[in-house]
Amino acid sequence: MEDLKQFFKKDNFAANSGIELLEASPGYAKARMDIEEKHLNALKAVQGGALFTLADLAFAAASNAYGNAAVGINANISFVKAATKGILTAEAKENSINPKIATYTVNITDDEGDLVAIFQGMAYRKKFPLDFSDV
Amino acid sequence: MEDLKQFFKKDNFAANSGIELLEASPGYAKARMDIEEKHLNALKAVQGGALFTLADLAFAAASNAYGNAAVGINANISFVKAATKGILTAEAKENSINPKIATYTVNITDDEGDLVAIFQGMAYRKKFPLDFSDV
Amino acid sequence: MEDLKQFFKKDNFAANSGIELLEASPGYAKARMDIEEKHLNALKAVQGGALFTLADLAFAAASNAYGNAAVGINANISFVKAATKGILTAEAKENSINPKIATYTVNITDDEGDLVAIFQGMAYRKKFPLDFSDV
Amino acid sequence: MEDLKQFFKKDNFAANSGIELLEASPGYAKARMDIEEKHLNALKAVQGGALFTLADLAFAAASNAYGNAAVGINANISFVKAATKGILTAEAKENSINPKIATYTVNITDDEGDLVAIFQGMAYRKKFPLDFSDV
Repeated sequence: MEDLKQFFKKDNFAANSGIELLEASPGYAKARMDIEEKHLNALKAVQGGALFTLADLAFAAASNAYGNAAVGINANISFVKAATKGILTAEAKENSINPKIATYTVNITDDEGDLVAIFQGMAYRKKFPLDFSDV
Repeated sequence: MEDLKQFFKKDNFAANSGIELLEASPGYAKARMDIEEKHLNALKAVQGGALFTLADLAFAAASNAYGNAAVGINANISFVKAATKGILTAEAKENSINPKIATYTVNITDDEGDLVAIFQGMAYRKKFPLDFSDV
Repeated sequence: MEDLKQFFKKDNFAANSGIELLEASPGYAKARMDIEEKHLNALKAVQGGALFTLADLAFAAASNAYGNAAVGINANISFVKAATKGILTAEAKENSINPKIATYTVNITDDEGDLVAIFQGMAYRKKFPLDFSDV
Repeated sequence: MEDLKQFFKKDNFAANSGIELLEASPGYAKARMDIEEKHLNALKAVQGGALFTLADLAFAAASNAYGNAAVGINANISFVKAATKGILTAEAKENSINPKIATYTVNITDDEGDLVAIFQGMAYRKKFPLDFSDV
């Protein structure tokens, strides 16, 4: 788990977006993002891309936590409540896993426990292991 | 168009992600992102969230270019080629428009003209106009 | 509930597909389909359209059970296990509900309790009530 | 092509749904469905599952036309216009193809040339060839 958290610190885009990986184990992960000015769109709500990135990091951690590289091939996201302030939490849970394909649902909730977005991700599982040598 | 481009400069998340809106008219938009270190994930490819954000800005511009606010309610993205360097371009085209709901396809292509990701977005069209007063 | 079940018996396509609505209440529904020869595709597995139709009926029942018409505007389905025989069950649960838009997850499972498909549906909620006069 | 058309006649669910494959070549296919009473839902519009099945057959034909089995793993469909009568046509075009994964867009249009639904499908390409021995 510590290795994995270190590994995902090398995700520059998530790091620059202020996203922190809280937990990760095979098939499960949790991440958080404290809403700042930099996350907002022109309508003053958290940009869809920021929400997607938060969900995507949780998805990546859950699917890569088996130790081999897994890459996202498809994702579907529904935006159900505008988020404007506070802390957002993304929780990824595995729905299914096969040798090649695995699927995950990620729920993003706000401070009040309300659902902000729901994300379905599909990962393609590669044969090569993650490289933890420099983490 | 100039108003709209100025309006979308207020999209902090897209701006911080280095995304530039090139064109926007009702039902159509084009945006670009020059790949930098900051866009990469832990596997050294452009993070899915960065690709999503690029597509999302083009989608937002195409759907808001009618002058009224339109918010994304659903998006589906397929990642078909890993991007690691060069310039990415997102082009949004309208598939359908109703009083309340409109749909768009956004193709992201790389320098070689290869498709990197394909994005389907659905927007809910609100009744209030965009505020261009301070752009 | 009895009214609603009768109402959905008028869904010709679902009825011809051998799909039965088992339960329906606001935000929740369950349906079943006993796999027959007629559901199979050219590769001898249940056709994706048959699985979609099963999920769609549960989604429609859950979203229409409030009494007003709700129409599906988007659905995303992931096929995770091939189904070839036995009974399939679809269970729809509401993720979010707003005055205009509601979202649902539908899981399709087989006899062994394995997940066969996962469906995300988004409904647009209309103002007019369902017509139960002739059910 | 004749082999492929014969092969897809063994898709019982599509055949029972009155769907006819018109054209199929590697990466491309066209199918049609003449709307009948049996395709309607409780609100007297073509059921979402019938539209999905029509799109799915075109998707399956386009992705299997290379001669090896390809199975749908994910599909996203947006319903943009209610269909109630006439002829529906689905046209599948390939967006991308890799050794393992290929993606397709299928547009369903009505008699008036209006878009009824837009479908994005992702297929997993297997190593074994289709069996044309008994077609």
